[in-house]
Amino acid sequence: MAMAKRDTYTPESLLAVAVEVFNERGYDGTSMEHLSQAAGISKSSIYHHVKGKEELLRRAISRALDGLFGILREPDALEGAAIDRLQYVVRRTAEVLMAELPYVTLLLRVRGNTDTERWAMERRREFDHEVAELLKTAAADGDLRPDVDVRLATRLLFGMINSIVEWYRPGRGGAATSDEVADAVVRTAFAGLRV
Amino acid sequence: MAMAKRDTYTPESLLAVAVEVFNERGYDGTSMEHLSQAAGISKSSIYHHVKGKEELLRRAISRALDGLFGILREPDALEGAAIDRLQYVVRRTAEVLMAELPYVTLLLRVRGNTDTERWAMERRREFDHEVAELLKTAAADGDLRPDVDVRLATRLLFGMINSIVEWYRPGRGGAATSDEVADAVVRTAFAGLRV
Repeated sequence: MAMAKRDTYTPESLLAVAVEVFNERGYDGTSMEHLSQAAGISKSSIYHHVKGKEELLRRAISRALDGLFGILREPDALEGAAIDRLQYVVRRTAEVLMAELPYVTLLLRVRGNTDTERWAMERRREFDHEVAELLKTAAADGDLRPDVDVRLATRLLFGMINSIVEWYRPGRGGAATSDEVADAVVRTAFAGLRV
Repeated sequence: MAMAKRDTYTPESLLAVAVEVFNERGYDGTSMEHLSQAAGISKSSIYHHVKGKEELLRRAISRALDGLFGILREPDALEGAAIDRLQYVVRRTAEVLMAELPYVTLLLRVRGNTDTERWAMERRREFDHEVAELLKTAAADGDLRPDVDVRLATRLLFGMINSIVEWYRPGRGGAATSDEVADAVVRTAFAGLRV
């Protein structure tokens, strides 16, 4: 009697495989067949865990968003001068991006063809908006240089942080650690490069 | 007697159409048929101008690279303290990116599947390397803060500058001008946000 192939996937480990495939092929370019091949289990086994690829996308995006929005509820993001809270949030955003690299990479790449993608983009804008509010408060406190345009500075800050997904690979020999990268982001953005 | 459809394209205007299609569909996803449709001329008319889509890619990438490498030969990039030359090059890089937006966008998106793409990535690395050398010299002069890691700072600088292609759209009402964006990049990177 043939044994049925054992499905040893948990929702968590299946998600990790799916995110890898989404990031490699793009969400649009990924079929259930691709996911089945990458996971080495049948499509019906995948359907045992999830309704379809959009549910996997939603779970993966949620993981990235939970990490990011969680930062805003941490004590150092809530107490103290806005400029210090801003600096804390910027550092933590870089850290969460690196800790949840494939999930945040996926979040940054979605382009809005499905409800889940549009929801992801909307939530991402909300996060950016929260950070922009901190910049505004810091500016009102007189702690930002007066020539800083809040909207442009927010965009450039996220441009700098989000670009980390393009080159950061944890554990690569000789590469910068997450701490070193987060330090560099905070120093560059807040103190500037010039002595 | 039917008149042949007049081909009013110049190499320049055909290139502009091709770059638009490459950026929208991705270079890999663009066929000569797509280019023919977008330009409203026959494939044989396109072949009258170029050997194929890779030649269009090479011309488009060359235009971006000529703009970028041209910066390094401008007097202010060649004379003076390294920190000032660096600041000048950073500003001009942002400016060229915005002036040649579709061409630089294409350069930043190529991924290395053809000889032309690999050449583009190699030339881009050379440009980054030139900027990193300026950072090193500025550090040796004592004009960079001593805690700046040159390699990380170079990556974050380009992360910030290159992210402009994601949102800058010239002439959109109420949007920042190229000058304002270039100012914001220079101020954020060199002076930092904090008072």
